[in-house]
Amino acid sequence: MAKAKTKKKRQPVILITNDDSVNAPGIRALVEAVKGLGKIIVVAPDKPQSGMGHAITIGHPLRLQKVNLFEGVEAYACSGTPVDCVKLAVDKVIHDKPDICLSGINHGANHSINVIYSGTMSAALEASIESIPSIGFSLLDMSIDADFTAAKKYARILVEQVLGSKLKEKHLCLNVNIPKGDDKLIKGIKICRQAYAKYEEEFDERKDPSGRRYYWLTGEFLNFDKGRDTDVWALTNSYVSVVPVQFDLTNYELKKKLETNWKY
Amino acid sequence: MAKAKTKKKRQPVILITNDDSVNAPGIRALVEAVKGLGKIIVVAPDKPQSGMGHAITIGHPLRLQKVNLFEGVEAYACSGTPVDCVKLAVDKVIHDKPDICLSGINHGANHSINVIYSGTMSAALEASIESIPSIGFSLLDMSIDADFTAAKKYARILVEQVLGSKLKEKHLCLNVNIPKGDDKLIKGIKICRQAYAKYEEEFDERKDPSGRRYYWLTGEFLNFDKGRDTDVWALTNSYVSVVPVQFDLTNYELKKKLETNWKY
Repeated sequence: MAKAKTKKKRQPVILITNDDSVNAPGIRALVEAVKGLGKIIVVAPDKPQSGMGHAITIGHPLRLQKVNLFEGVEAYACSGTPVDCVKLAVDKVIHDKPDICLSGINHGANHSINVIYSGTMSAALEASIESIPSIGFSLLDMSIDADFTAAKKYARILVEQVLGSKLKEKHLCLNVNIPKGDDKLIKGIKICRQAYAKYEEEFDERKDPSGRRYYWLTGEFLNFDKGRDTDVWALTNSYVSVVPVQFDLTNYELKKKLETNWKY
Repeated sequence: MAKAKTKKKRQPVILITNDDSVNAPGIRALVEAVKGLGKIIVVAPDKPQSGMGHAITIGHPLRLQKVNLFEGVEAYACSGTPVDCVKLAVDKVIHDKPDICLSGINHGANHSINVIYSGTMSAALEASIESIPSIGFSLLDMSIDADFTAAKKYARILVEQVLGSKLKEKHLCLNVNIPKGDDKLIKGIKICRQAYAKYEEEFDERKDPSGRRYYWLTGEFLNFDKGRDTDVWALTNSYVSVVPVQFDLTNYELKKKLETNWKY
C-alpha cells in the first residue's frame, strides 16, 4: 500500500520538432514553454525545411546527430524533413509513441491554405496518423528576433488542455496560430475552420549572368473567405486560432454528387 | 451567320505534370491517353520527385527548360517540385488557367494515406486550390516496364467525363488508382473514400565505412480499414478507385467536440 502511494506517476513523453531547424529560436521557445509538463525529447531538422509540406526522404539515407542545445533535454538534429523527424523519433529515438507531439513554434503564419505547404503542420499531421495527439504552433512573425512571450503562454495552456483531455480522440491534431505582438492585446482562443485564403502567385522572372532565365516564387496573400468562423478572421481580430485538422482528404460531399450524377 | 457556323469551338487546354519526372514512361502514357481531347502542355519535374508531398521551393530560384520529348506537344522540364510545376505552368507558360490539370500516370499506388505523401496528388490538389479541375492517376505497378494499357483507357474515360461534366464543382480533384495487370480483368470504376491504411515504419539501420550510423526508410503497408467503400477495397477487388479529394483539412467533427467540451 505504502509502495503504491509513493509510486511516481509516469511522466508524459513530449516529442518536439519543427521545420525552421533545431537551431531556430522558435523551437527553443516551445521547449521552454512546456518545461515541467513531461519528459521532452527534441528531434528536428538540421537545416531550414520551410515549405516542405508532407515530403519524406526516399532514395537517400537519413542521419541523426545528437546535439547539446537545450539544457537537460535529449535532442537530435536530423538530415531529413519534418515528417522524417517524427517517423525516426518514434522508431529509433523513443522506440515507442510519445504521449504528444509538438511542432514549432514556427516563425511565420500557418493558417488557411498554409497548412498544406507547412513542414510544421505536416510533422504534426504525421504524428496524428500514428494516433499520437499533436499540435503545431505558429507565430505570425517571421523575424529571427520575434517575441515569443504570447506564443509560449498559449502553447502551454493548449498542451495542458490536450494532455488533460478526456476526449480520447483517436487522431487529434491542432493547427494553432498566434497573433504577432503584445500578449495583453490577445483576446483569447477561438476554435476555427480553415479559411479559403491563398496566394495569388507571381513569379519574379530574372536572367542570370549567362542570360538564362530563372524564377523566384513570390505572390500576394488574399483571403476569399468572408466567414467569421475562420482562422484568418480570428487572427485578424486578435484571437489565437485553433483549427482541428485531419488527414482524411476525402471530399464526401463531392463523392455523393459523383455517385448520383456520373455514368460509369 | 455562316461565320458563326464555321467558328471552331475553343479546344480545352490540358496541363500535364507528374512526380516521376518528364522522362518517365507514365507521363508519356498520359499524354498518349488524352491525345485529341485538347491542346496539351507538359510541365513536369526534371528529376524524380516521389514522396515530395505538397513541397514548394522557397529560397532557391526555379528553372524551366523546353524539351522535345512528346511529338507535337509543348513541353518543359522544371527544376522544382510537382507543386512548383503547376504554379509555374499557370503563371509563366500558359499565362492562364488550363481547363484541366492531369498528373501522372504515377509508377506505383497513391491510394489511402499515400495521397498525403504523393507529389502526383499534391500537383493535382494544387490545381484544385486554383479552381482548376484536376485528376491524379496512379498505376499499382512501380516497374519501369509497367503495362499502361488499362491505365490509359480509364484515364481517357475519366478525363472525358470531367471535361463534359455539368457539375460545375468549384474545386474538383480526383485521386484515381488503377489495378496492375490485364485490362480485361478490371471490373470497372468505383467512387470511394480514402482508406485508413498506412505504413508501419521501420528504419533499416546501417553503418557507413567510417562507422557512423545512417537510416533507410522502409516499412510494411497495412490496411486497418474494413470498409467496402474504400479505395483499398476497390483496388483489391479489381476496380479502378476514384476518390474525390479536398484541401480543406478542417476536422469539423472534432471542431464541434472541442467547442462543447473545452474550457478556454
